Amino acid sequence: MTNSLNIIPEKLAVVKIGGNIIDDEAQLSSFLNAFAAIDGKKILVHGGGKLATRVAEAMGISQEMVNGRRITDAETLKVVTMVYAGFINKNIVAQLQAAGCNAIGLSGADGNIIQGHKRIATTIDYGFVGDIDAVNAGFVKQLLSHNAALVLSPITHNGNGQLLNTNADTIAQEIAKAMSAYYEVSLLYCFEKKGVLLDPADDSSIIPVIDRLYFEKLKEDLVISAGMIPKLDNAFEALSAGVQHIFIGHAAELPQLILHQSGTSIVHE
Amino acid sequence: MTNSLNIIPEKLAVVKIGGNIIDDEAQLSSFLNAFAAIDGKKILVHGGGKLATRVAEAMGISQEMVNGRRITDAETLKVVTMVYAGFINKNIVAQLQAAGCNAIGLSGADGNIIQGHKRIATTIDYGFVGDIDAVNAGFVKQLLSHNAALVLSPITHNGNGQLLNTNADTIAQEIAKAMSAYYEVSLLYCFEKKGVLLDPADDSSIIPVIDRLYFEKLKEDLVISAGMIPKLDNAFEALSAGVQHIFIGHAAELPQLILHQSGTSIVHE
Repeated sequence: MTNSLNIIPEKLAVVKIGGNIIDDEAQLSSFLNAFAAIDGKKILVHGGGKLATRVAEAMGISQEMVNGRRITDAETLKVVTMVYAGFINKNIVAQLQAAGCNAIGLSGADGNIIQGHKRIATTIDYGFVGDIDAVNAGFVKQLLSHNAALVLSPITHNGNGQLLNTNADTIAQEIAKAMSAYYEVSLLYCFEKKGVLLDPADDSSIIPVIDRLYFEKLKEDLVISAGMIPKLDNAFEALSAGVQHIFIGHAAELPQLILHQSGTSIVHE
Repeated sequence: MTNSLNIIPEKLAVVKIGGNIIDDEAQLSSFLNAFAAIDGKKILVHGGGKLATRVAEAMGISQEMVNGRRITDAETLKVVTMVYAGFINKNIVAQLQAAGCNAIGLSGADGNIIQGHKRIATTIDYGFVGDIDAVNAGFVKQLLSHNAALVLSPITHNGNGQLLNTNADTIAQEIAKAMSAYYEVSLLYCFEKKGVLLDPADDSSIIPVIDRLYFEKLKEDLVISAGMIPKLDNAFEALSAGVQHIFIGHAAELPQLILHQSGTSIVHE
């Protein structure tokens, strides 16, 4: 964001943590200590799909995934609300408090911070899955003013009392975009790989920087994994919308990632 | 609270909603509309034991109650965290948003607002049950400054990463006491009865006012129900600690209750 008064905007880190890390107690603990140590304003966005699947199975609620997305019927919505907004969110908050980082755990319904609508069924009916309409950036800024980290679970609402299961990557992206009106935003996607890989089978083949031109070439050459393409499409969209820095890398390397000493940096050109 | 500058303190309503109302969709909806309509600052405290029992049973986790309190082993703690801080808390928040009342749902870990310790096992080991050590009243006040209602689930933490299952009546009482440093606090216990009853078998035998002397007589005469005695003991303790008004009554009569046109009012003398 350009600032007409030439005041340097405050920094905000928006960090998305991937499900495989959440599922591993030791890796999660180590990651949360690193997150707690980030200077300044910060937001953590989490999912937790594997635990949701285990709880659903324990309750005898069968789960169906289409294109990596969970079909969310009424019973499954209860499960993801319990697991994401309850168990995972509050355990992350308690662990951050223990690490000396004040934190507030929220869903998109809290403070009306993320409003969405139920995805319209086409050939696939995803059920109670939400697409984001609006981020209440002003209210998020007010909450951040208390020097507490925000921890967001991927549950949104439609304003009429209906909760909606929403993709956590998308939440991180939309929050980062909206908050770039107020802050110099870094958006960090932390997962179990060290960055975007030139060869998905080779964990050391990290691409340090991807600009738009190079991304088009990577897509043409079919070298990066199919699952990474929508993530990168979204990343470039977020850059265009004002997010200053985007990094993708390993959760264990968060301190290096934020300084761009590891992982993949997504840049305009 | 006396105020040396003779400034009239702002009003705060702390409302505890009982489990039988939470369990009934129509009654809960009607109650939340009435709560949304309360003028000024407000905090809603909820439990949700019946749903927790149903989810635990569905997951094959056996539940044990002693003196009306849930023995909270590690698996049961997961269930109550999911149900109270997740499902019930977020559904209440979404319904308040739909009723035009901005709301933020929190546990005691969020913003470190309620810190406790694991109850020491004596003849009974309650497991991961918390007794309250401290309320972060300053932070609660900061959150209330955003003109959003706070919705508190009865999950606290010990500051070292451990979540704890905590009695919702006690949370309401401790929050009311702590906030009386800043506000003129009304503490309202809303449940499925119209007040404290002279004859537990007669729903119309509501006692309109109970002072300390009368309470001692009621205890001597063994007229009120055994379960009501610890509630009233706590109410008198809260009055002594600075809470200005305490009302006990039916959830359907919240608007009348807050004006003391129904229910039971607990007063010093």
